[in-house]
Amino acid sequence: MKFATLPNGKPDGRLHLVSRDLTRAAPAEAAETLQAALEDWTALEPKLQAQYAALNAGGGAPFDAMRALAPLPRAWQWLDGSAFESHGRLMDKVFGMNKELHPKPLMYQGVSDRFYPPVAEIPFVSTADGIDFEGEFGVIVDAAPMNISKQEALAHIRLIVQINDWSLRKLAPIEMKTGFGWVQAKPPCGMAPVAVTPDELGIHWRDARVDLPLEVSWNEKPFGAANGYEMSFGFDDLVAHAAYSRPLVAGTVIGSGTVSNENFREVGSSCIAERRGIEIVDHGAATTDYMTFGDRVTMEARLPDGTPVFGRLAQTVVRAES
Amino acid sequence: MKFATLPNGKPDGRLHLVSRDLTRAAPAEAAETLQAALEDWTALEPKLQAQYAALNAGGGAPFDAMRALAPLPRAWQWLDGSAFESHGRLMDKVFGMNKELHPKPLMYQGVSDRFYPPVAEIPFVSTADGIDFEGEFGVIVDAAPMNISKQEALAHIRLIVQINDWSLRKLAPIEMKTGFGWVQAKPPCGMAPVAVTPDELGIHWRDARVDLPLEVSWNEKPFGAANGYEMSFGFDDLVAHAAYSRPLVAGTVIGSGTVSNENFREVGSSCIAERRGIEIVDHGAATTDYMTFGDRVTMEARLPDGTPVFGRLAQTVVRAES
Repeated sequence: MKFATLPNGKPDGRLHLVSRDLTRAAPAEAAETLQAALEDWTALEPKLQAQYAALNAGGGAPFDAMRALAPLPRAWQWLDGSAFESHGRLMDKVFGMNKELHPKPLMYQGVSDRFYPPVAEIPFVSTADGIDFEGEFGVIVDAAPMNISKQEALAHIRLIVQINDWSLRKLAPIEMKTGFGWVQAKPPCGMAPVAVTPDELGIHWRDARVDLPLEVSWNEKPFGAANGYEMSFGFDDLVAHAAYSRPLVAGTVIGSGTVSNENFREVGSSCIAERRGIEIVDHGAATTDYMTFGDRVTMEARLPDGTPVFGRLAQTVVRAES
Repeated sequence: MKFATLPNGKPDGRLHLVSRDLTRAAPAEAAETLQAALEDWTALEPKLQAQYAALNAGGGAPFDAMRALAPLPRAWQWLDGSAFESHGRLMDKVFGMNKELHPKPLMYQGVSDRFYPPVAEIPFVSTADGIDFEGEFGVIVDAAPMNISKQEALAHIRLIVQINDWSLRKLAPIEMKTGFGWVQAKPPCGMAPVAVTPDELGIHWRDARVDLPLEVSWNEKPFGAANGYEMSFGFDDLVAHAAYSRPLVAGTVIGSGTVSNENFREVGSSCIAERRGIEIVDHGAATTDYMTFGDRVTMEARLPDGTPVFGRLAQTVVRAES
């Protein structure tokens, strides 16, 4: 199934089913919001499935992805991993850290009371903070008890999403050094318009990983197309890690961290910090600057046959009103 | 005003006004839940004030604090500071860190989809994780825009609460070393039954700090009575810090970190880790163990004349069902 949320004046918006080709949509009959669907997923899934099948056979209204909110416009919990070793090793090298001592997944909790819409102007205070995008995949779980196994965790993964994890790079190392993680360095994220059930990826949902390239462009120039499969921990590991000492509330979103591949010099990167890291390693200094007001990032993943999956995220950096 | 939330079968419970002496309560007429009150605080405050004045003059039903939920049973955001230098310096000494290099407040984001009720059994997986309490004060804000000043931040502080920030000390240093902050080391917190407006503290709300001792007992033995005033950053600073790159959603809870005083050898501590730190500094090794199943912690703060403020938190450590 594919889901989007369209605005209706309420904070959680109105849940819609979207046809597989993302051309048509209809209000979900079984649940008013995606949060409500996730809170009662097992009971509602057959009804949603039936409506999705009917929608794919015809009917519905044209799907206007430009109007969509994030599929989950707000969540009780957002936990972001950093599961791509090629990215982690490069960042450790550049920042002089050594996280390979830690055999557990890396994860922090970020702001979740709002996920910015897929097509939106995103407000920032200052370009001096080092404004950067981070292309990620993520999963959304239904309610999961504390201390579950990796196998149990997998069964709670109900949806896959594509996320832009906005980051302020000049603030990040200061906050990392405290050991407390990021608050100022991690503004709210954006989400691509469509959340999908794992079966929509077919063989490209593999080992609890998204085996698809994430195409990232910056100001309409291709920036990277790294594949989501190279995670050193799968989403099942990340969910189990998150649930160790807390039950997971329905609608918890868990991110992969910046998608990154060993051959980043060929496929490119999903964030500017990684490109700058490569420049520092290769040439001793970074030559690519962070984003400035008016800059735009776009992100999209498709199946090899061109079928759209999450739709397109296109967000523009603007100066926050003071 | 003083507020409590009583169970009504819904996740946010039913908001009640509580008399100043905490003996009587009445369902709030102006708002069904504390979250709803916070989302429209300016408009609802006069109505709540009028009902509170009437309740203090008489009426209402007996207030059963033993049945209360956390005043805010769930929140969109929980950001915990660590604003007591006496605690921070001791922990840095013991763990070989040096956070005095960082002139900004220390803060991490923790799980907020549930705050445990004030009187409750709290489930933990293993005593090997180093189960510890942390007595804190906290504030709850209404919606605040991004990048506000300290003065603006102060005006958004609507309520003060008392929090028990459960912590797993054996996991904490591992997560700190990643730089990503705590996920597994910070299970959900508990909250004392009553949230109060700052005016209820009178002269004991001073410089955006709670100038009252927090009495902490462990298995009915007094453990500490540190005063909340010695914060190196006030709650106004903490709120402004939190809001730098994110607007604060109504109902954001911001914590002080473990209440700690320079003279901790005299007044005691608000968490076991601090007592162990003192033992390590004084004797080369810690002799106090962390909590075990069946252990109980209680926390309470009163005005000097004995008037109760937040009511009493009394939580017991139990083994999580597997």
